[in-house]
Amino acid sequence: MEIVSSNKSFGGWHKRYKHRSTSLNCDMVFAVYLPPQAEQGEKLPVLYWLSGLTCTDENFMQKAGAQRLAAELGLIIVAPDTSPRGESVPDDPAGAYDFGLGAGFYVNATREPWARHYRMYDYVTQELPALIESNFPVSEKRGIAGHSMGGHGALICALKNPGRYRSVSAFSPIANPMQCPWGEKALSHYLGDDRTLWREWDACALLAEATEKLPILVDQGDRDDFLEGQLKPQALEAAAKAAGHPLTLRMQPGYDHSYYFIASFIGEHLAYHAKALNS
Amino acid sequence: MEIVSSNKSFGGWHKRYKHRSTSLNCDMVFAVYLPPQAEQGEKLPVLYWLSGLTCTDENFMQKAGAQRLAAELGLIIVAPDTSPRGESVPDDPAGAYDFGLGAGFYVNATREPWARHYRMYDYVTQELPALIESNFPVSEKRGIAGHSMGGHGALICALKNPGRYRSVSAFSPIANPMQCPWGEKALSHYLGDDRTLWREWDACALLAEATEKLPILVDQGDRDDFLEGQLKPQALEAAAKAAGHPLTLRMQPGYDHSYYFIASFIGEHLAYHAKALNS
Repeated sequence: MEIVSSNKSFGGWHKRYKHRSTSLNCDMVFAVYLPPQAEQGEKLPVLYWLSGLTCTDENFMQKAGAQRLAAELGLIIVAPDTSPRGESVPDDPAGAYDFGLGAGFYVNATREPWARHYRMYDYVTQELPALIESNFPVSEKRGIAGHSMGGHGALICALKNPGRYRSVSAFSPIANPMQCPWGEKALSHYLGDDRTLWREWDACALLAEATEKLPILVDQGDRDDFLEGQLKPQALEAAAKAAGHPLTLRMQPGYDHSYYFIASFIGEHLAYHAKALNS
Repeated sequence: MEIVSSNKSFGGWHKRYKHRSTSLNCDMVFAVYLPPQAEQGEKLPVLYWLSGLTCTDENFMQKAGAQRLAAELGLIIVAPDTSPRGESVPDDPAGAYDFGLGAGFYVNATREPWARHYRMYDYVTQELPALIESNFPVSEKRGIAGHSMGGHGALICALKNPGRYRSVSAFSPIANPMQCPWGEKALSHYLGDDRTLWREWDACALLAEATEKLPILVDQGDRDDFLEGQLKPQALEAAAKAAGHPLTLRMQPGYDHSYYFIASFIGEHLAYHAKALNS
């Protein structure tokens, strides 16, 4: 693990690291925000943030304005990249933004040429946490959150790993990827055409079988251009209701899909995670 | 004036507009943050933010995290671009980042080929405020702030216009452009080689003649790579002391030149401006 850059931020540090990922068979960069409390020897709770299509580790750290409250709350935040990277990693043949590089969808691909590198689920749930836990003062109190494709990622990571995360939230998640164009494209390429295999990567399908009832917080702007076609929060609401799973879905009037929306409510999400992580 | 984009942010709106600038002889884009109070019919104080080298109207709005507190304080923020733009506008012949496009230095150029377009001083002190005042609910309570080249801009705009601004602050300003490589390059091209003509665009020189003693707040990171070579806060401190001008220069330990630094202290700057603007 080598350091890429380091910026003091709200009395703590925003740092970027590069490392060789065995899950992904490539070099990866991730970012971590270490609040001032990280220098005091105590182990702190950690929030994993999964970003959306086209993002890297940088978008959230630059645009969400999360560091102020993370510094207050004593919360470490880790932001991975959104796909494997590098010249050896295959991309969408047409270079589309919604598949391949920048669009790993937090699944483990089973089909070639994707399976060799596109194992973002293993990376964000296992390899990266192990790296974080051996290099930074984090406790085993883990939360997970994300936006859009990363909101989908946060939901499936929490639902598939009972006991691993103490809190989960999402902004504008792709809530039902089996039933939207972004999801259908990604899942058919990464996993093949058998839709029964897609169910373990779809929050709505996973909710029906979830044994742990970890409460879910979701914020969704009602002027989000992707609301009806791609995100489908109503499907999540229906699935949670059918499963008796606690979900707080807040439709936020006037807000869109951008980081201006995330920044407006990240404070409430961080407070939500900190409360669960510190309880 | 036509709207380019609009994003709800902390209950208010981040909007971008395009307009024809007569000062600059080109189309320009600027951003404005309108807090929720802007919809209530009252006129609000306005802070002009001038950005640094390579920036557009977007950097500050995306990265500084200013909207949260602006919404609390009822402060409108206006962020212009950093130079004239467009195919007809000449750039640095070598395409360097520190002159030409993205590097207007907030002066009025007098030498060709620059003089026809590079009149950012007139634009940010006259044309843009007139446009803002006729289209948005702003009072005549104006503050000005900026970063790096824009910190220089904020200082000279305030010092050259007694009574026009009620507050001024800067992050990491190019405090003495006559005496640093960035400033010498820009001023020699825009104004010619006669250094006596540069004095009216140099905060240190202007301080010696300032009739209005408007207090200045400056934050400067002590791990800023440009500190010694380009920024020279000590020259500003000496000039303020010699002139008996109130300056609060805060050296912030560990901070660099990035927006992570700005975000860490923007809240204190906004509170400083709001206090002066509302008094």
